[in-house]
Amino acid sequence: MRKLRVLLLCHPDAIPPDSLEGLSQKQAYDIKSEYDVAAALRECGHEVRPLGVQYDLKPIRDEIENWRPDVVFNLLIEFHGEAVYGQNIASFLELMRVPYTGCNPRGLVLAQGKDLSKKLLKYHRIPSPAFAVFPIARKVRRPAKLPFPLIVKSTIEDASMGISQASVVDSDEKLVERVHFIHEHLGTAAIAEEYIDGRELYVGVLGNERLKVLPIWELKFERLAPGALPIATERVKRSPRYQEERGVVDGPALDLAPELARRISDITKRICRVLELDGYVRIDFRLGRDGVPYFIEANPNPEVAQAEEFARSALHDGIAYPDLINRIVSLAIARTGAEEE
Amino acid sequence: MRKLRVLLLCHPDAIPPDSLEGLSQKQAYDIKSEYDVAAALRECGHEVRPLGVQYDLKPIRDEIENWRPDVVFNLLIEFHGEAVYGQNIASFLELMRVPYTGCNPRGLVLAQGKDLSKKLLKYHRIPSPAFAVFPIARKVRRPAKLPFPLIVKSTIEDASMGISQASVVDSDEKLVERVHFIHEHLGTAAIAEEYIDGRELYVGVLGNERLKVLPIWELKFERLAPGALPIATERVKRSPRYQEERGVVDGPALDLAPELARRISDITKRICRVLELDGYVRIDFRLGRDGVPYFIEANPNPEVAQAEEFARSALHDGIAYPDLINRIVSLAIARTGAEEE
Repeated sequence: MRKLRVLLLCHPDAIPPDSLEGLSQKQAYDIKSEYDVAAALRECGHEVRPLGVQYDLKPIRDEIENWRPDVVFNLLIEFHGEAVYGQNIASFLELMRVPYTGCNPRGLVLAQGKDLSKKLLKYHRIPSPAFAVFPIARKVRRPAKLPFPLIVKSTIEDASMGISQASVVDSDEKLVERVHFIHEHLGTAAIAEEYIDGRELYVGVLGNERLKVLPIWELKFERLAPGALPIATERVKRSPRYQEERGVVDGPALDLAPELARRISDITKRICRVLELDGYVRIDFRLGRDGVPYFIEANPNPEVAQAEEFARSALHDGIAYPDLINRIVSLAIARTGAEEE
Repeated sequence: MRKLRVLLLCHPDAIPPDSLEGLSQKQAYDIKSEYDVAAALRECGHEVRPLGVQYDLKPIRDEIENWRPDVVFNLLIEFHGEAVYGQNIASFLELMRVPYTGCNPRGLVLAQGKDLSKKLLKYHRIPSPAFAVFPIARKVRRPAKLPFPLIVKSTIEDASMGISQASVVDSDEKLVERVHFIHEHLGTAAIAEEYIDGRELYVGVLGNERLKVLPIWELKFERLAPGALPIATERVKRSPRYQEERGVVDGPALDLAPELARRISDITKRICRVLELDGYVRIDFRLGRDGVPYFIEANPNPEVAQAEEFARSALHDGIAYPDLINRIVSLAIARTGAEEE
């Protein structure tokens, strides 16, 4: 690929430094995606200009008009501190007619509401847990058809936010308690889903029209506390110490029968089509004890730090990290038709 | 209401003049919404500044920052000539944190794909015609379960675009022909829906959280040509001469049993909630001979010219035109929480 000018959009607190030297482990962890992406792009010979934005579109517009980047690498997942504005930024870049990485705005809207994506997939007969949504300031009434245990999450925040062992509830009393917890702590509606006992699988996808499914990835819990459930809580996702203590490891999902693996790969592609997802995407499943892969969540623009599931799964498929980042950039450019993929 | 500064966004070809004098009937017809809205706003004492935009966001941004309008009256339904960018403009105004009239971006996305809205409503058991989507450049294969007659439309263009008597097909040969017509003439995927023989009903809604349903409106065909079907074709929608010739009239839907009218009103509100629509909206139904109101289409930001269904229906409910426009403005301001409704 020719050398490109890449405008890297990120949160102002996450502008990547030239080196990680002198940063605490936590500081380095907090900017890992931004740092890894910038480093990979530079390694490929591209010119990278990071830009921290959060409240004002003008700096984005100015950089696009004055510096004329070939592509925007979009690592913004919020604006004005609101996660729901993720799609607005993609919309803005679309109107500015500049190629940008990741998913288009329609896909971002459809994937964001955990309830919305499940309704659409149900229409297409793709298995997903039964669920109910509980808006803020309304009485919590569980539909008779929705049996315990249930797992309670925010409808729109990232999966691990607000998730702990207490998220899985087995009584109406605990359900009400946990729904209120989500309302109060995250300020969003809550969704209660049928809890699927089984394996936690992640499937990465690269592509716009033609989709490439990466190796199926699994999050495993080797030393669960007694009575604890194998779920991706905030601590599991964010605390390296806890991960070590509890033997949380991720790697290729082993021992999947070839037909099952093929089925998961096919379902993954269908999900991307139904939800109009493109760019790079991670689809999360629970593989139930009944052998059924249940759709849990679609993550357009998933975490792309080198040490995280998506990149590790790509590497397992022979795609080195800088190549992965380059492919994400190529997909952005290909979508606008500005250049062949 | 206090006097407001209103920035009126419209297509550059539709900037409303101060008077209609000297315009041909067609010229006046083409700018009727823009003219009517501007006149109504001025009648209410507001200061109105029309701005024609199509390819560049900068003028919008400049006006918002320099003139500081209290609200944007958004009459843009496309950008870069693309109808799908309607939601991007609302997204942009949302990021600019300025109150704007009409529907939020999520609702615009959900309502735009005629297939998307129907899938979501099916999940909620709201009756709508069975359908199939035929993307461009793929073989047209009718699902066995989808019986003739079918009506063929664009998935995303406005309802009447590309609709004529030939849109209703009763054989696979004619289906293929009409699908290709949509692909070639409108450049979008086609949707074929079960044709519902019955009455054409429109229901207007005003509101964000609390929804007000306007009187049920009906499009009637008094002098159909022999063999012609009562459907809202492009000619029916756009040609005043044809309307007169064929006795196309619209008015309150008479003779609806009170329970049916109540049911339609309830379904209309449910549709707005499921599709996350707010501001001002028109929901289109066909009332089948089986007495079932079938959802056909949701129109966020519908036509608001004084002579069109939405405003006439509001007037029938006692809301004079300037009051209607004022309420649409109030809803925009109320949504941002900047001022009480």
